[in-house]
Amino acid sequence: MEQNKASAPVPPTKRVRCIVKLGGAAITCKNKLETIDEENLTEVSSQLRQALIPNSDSAKILGMDWSKRPGQSEPPSFVDEFSDQPVADSESFIVVHGAGSFGHFQASKSGVHKGGLSRPLVKAGFVATRISVTSLNLEIVRALAREGIPSIGMSPFSCGWSTCQRNMTEADISMVIKAIDAGFIPVLHGDAVLDTLQECTILSGDVIIRHLAAELKPEFVVFLTDVLGVYDRPPVEPGAVLIREIAVREDGSWSVVKPRLEDTSKPVEFTVAAHDTTGGMVTKITEAAMIAKLGIDVYITKVGAGRNGPLSESPEWNLERQHT
Amino acid sequence: MEQNKASAPVPPTKRVRCIVKLGGAAITCKNKLETIDEENLTEVSSQLRQALIPNSDSAKILGMDWSKRPGQSEPPSFVDEFSDQPVADSESFIVVHGAGSFGHFQASKSGVHKGGLSRPLVKAGFVATRISVTSLNLEIVRALAREGIPSIGMSPFSCGWSTCQRNMTEADISMVIKAIDAGFIPVLHGDAVLDTLQECTILSGDVIIRHLAAELKPEFVVFLTDVLGVYDRPPVEPGAVLIREIAVREDGSWSVVKPRLEDTSKPVEFTVAAHDTTGGMVTKITEAAMIAKLGIDVYITKVGAGRNGPLSESPEWNLERQHT
Repeated sequence: MEQNKASAPVPPTKRVRCIVKLGGAAITCKNKLETIDEENLTEVSSQLRQALIPNSDSAKILGMDWSKRPGQSEPPSFVDEFSDQPVADSESFIVVHGAGSFGHFQASKSGVHKGGLSRPLVKAGFVATRISVTSLNLEIVRALAREGIPSIGMSPFSCGWSTCQRNMTEADISMVIKAIDAGFIPVLHGDAVLDTLQECTILSGDVIIRHLAAELKPEFVVFLTDVLGVYDRPPVEPGAVLIREIAVREDGSWSVVKPRLEDTSKPVEFTVAAHDTTGGMVTKITEAAMIAKLGIDVYITKVGAGRNGPLSESPEWNLERQHT
Repeated sequence: MEQNKASAPVPPTKRVRCIVKLGGAAITCKNKLETIDEENLTEVSSQLRQALIPNSDSAKILGMDWSKRPGQSEPPSFVDEFSDQPVADSESFIVVHGAGSFGHFQASKSGVHKGGLSRPLVKAGFVATRISVTSLNLEIVRALAREGIPSIGMSPFSCGWSTCQRNMTEADISMVIKAIDAGFIPVLHGDAVLDTLQECTILSGDVIIRHLAAELKPEFVVFLTDVLGVYDRPPVEPGAVLIREIAVREDGSWSVVKPRLEDTSKPVEFTVAAHDTTGGMVTKITEAAMIAKLGIDVYITKVGAGRNGPLSESPEWNLERQHT
């Protein structure tokens, strides 16, 4: 389904350890237009810092967002302390975030995903969507930088990523690789992009993740969501069990490995949060399964679930390729 | 000095009419950290709208920034009126802006232009500079979009532009061309970029302009500045004359064409505003002369100087290639 027309990029010098998907619902208030969930974003940023910069001490972190703070006219004073900082040897991570309450209104109001740039509403919606999602990207880059994470915002549109009939056709990842090799953490996002057949569409964060995973073969992929995980039936039902591990077969089918379900005759039902308009858990599992099929471990975890340790040690549940 | 390693991009279907440089000093309060000159930016955006969308009526413009306004929780209501809008046939323009009071502190404090990403201060400064300049870019894209200009922010870093020993080596403009062909107005900016020899540096808006002008051969280039123009001597001296036209010869030398100066034995002295840290008028003339040498007319004009008409009709002074 996907192909990369660009000449094969030089692979990164150091292997990408992890691609992290920050779900739009996890970092924004999904029902409040263009509102960031500051508490969750701060927590995610801190968790990522612990995962990225081993042995980092939150008390000693010197931020990389030197912009003046609201109400201030001077840059933050800690900038002068920088020369004493040791070089933080960070892991190679890529962050991809969804849009949540950013971009969604603009995209759905104008129908950007359906194409047709000659229609003024679609053209304006394309511009408006990009303004909204890039403003979220800037705030996430800022939040990560404040934790001392060398984050670099990179828009798929500017990177030259485009689609044909909504399937990704051009996705030059050479700049992502160069950024990683230079020691930065690229921060990409779902974006409005050009489409060779229908003129424009929306490229989702999940498709970006899948493409990056296929090209860069990270050790693992983490989906940070706003829900604790997947249950075997609606969690309001008595006896609902939180699934810990799913195995994916080569043909894409999957089965629950942990916990051992007592009534195996009953199929697993997925709960979909009412506010999750992007397809809910079924979409998440499908996307995760496609990555797991590549031989890459996938973890889905709730923001804050790993409060007592680094991100990579606290998967709520994971998908693993079954070795048959 | 410059070379483009990328394969020759497909030229744009429609000729680029103009590249506009928004000087950092013209759109920001240069001595106030990260502060936009809102009045000037609004005026520039309105002037650009008149130049870009012929016969546009300011009363009927429906903005393309649909983000909620400060203090509001709903998107602007005009969005519902969009379907009645006629297609605005806009000219092919590219906007490039400087940094002014954005990015400057971060870049100079850390010495990003001198390179050395292994130094924590430089690495953090790189991240901090990009945060600052991309936040300015977002505000300019927003201001243009509010005027109904289909503006698309594109960061040179994300576009894969890089340098070698501070000279531009890679500048793939294919995405800029695709954006123009799709009817958008790309908005680029001076940026922190990777450098193959010294790891990183600052790529200035003026170098970007020169490269784009050389590749795309626009009809003309406009520098929008914060000063009225160039005088033959410091304007505080009695009898100082505002220069209207300079002719540039193939060898890069130039002479004043209009007005005819009475005392031709006296060399022209340039006034440099005290707050203009990027080299002042001498740099501006040098950059402008290099573009004029390509056979492209260059206009330098003060923001607001063309209050009574579209931008392209109100050059304060221009550089023209001398036909000898």
